[in-house]
Amino acid sequence: TQQLLPRWTQHARPFRVINSDRSIKKGIMASDLRDLRNKVMDVFHMHCVSALVLDEDGTGVDTEDFFQTLKDNTDLMFLGKGQKWAPQQRHLPGQKKVERSNT
Amino acid sequence: TQQLLPRWTQHARPFRVINSDRSIKKGIMASDLRDLRNKVMDVFHMHCVSALVLDEDGTGVDTEDFFQTLKDNTDLMFLGKGQKWAPQQRHLPGQKKVERSNT
Repeated sequence: TQQLLPRWTQHARPFRVINSDRSIKKGIMASDLRDLRNKVMDVFHMHCVSALVLDEDGTGVDTEDFFQTLKDNTDLMFLGKGQKWAPQQRHLPGQKKVERSNT
Repeated sequence: TQQLLPRWTQHARPFRVINSDRSIKKGIMASDLRDLRNKVMDVFHMHCVSALVLDEDGTGVDTEDFFQTLKDNTDLMFLGKGQKWAPQQRHLPGQKKVERSNT
């Protein structure tokens, strides 16, 4: 039924969108996938967004119905031409401090 | 509908705002994003606030509609010129006490 409603009745929801090198992340409100893509292009000054993927595992969000199942504040990454998703480097606390002992 | 109401009818809500080196944190009441930015400049004696970001993940809070989705007492960080968000160092209990034994 969501698709049959006029655009203005759709409820805009918050998403957290990051660029492919994870240097900039923005909170963006969007009611549908096209709306989100347009806003991503505005906010990040992109001419074209090749893909939107889930930041957690790189799952492509290509369809409106899948997009509508995402929870509020889902982390999404957008990809420009030639860019690829890569898993987040998780530096666990203390991890960098592991040093080889002098034995 | 929030946007259609006169400014004075908006309900001021509490936020917890920290500076970029996480040395000072203040509880600040604000009804909208502009109000919060102005109060941050007053409270922290800043001439200019470049950005407000979520302390948890660095998401930029640039728009009023996204700001209005934030819960009361959300932790926010403000950034001055040239300052960047960095993830909070989480010192798990006991972790700092791990020392290399002299073998």
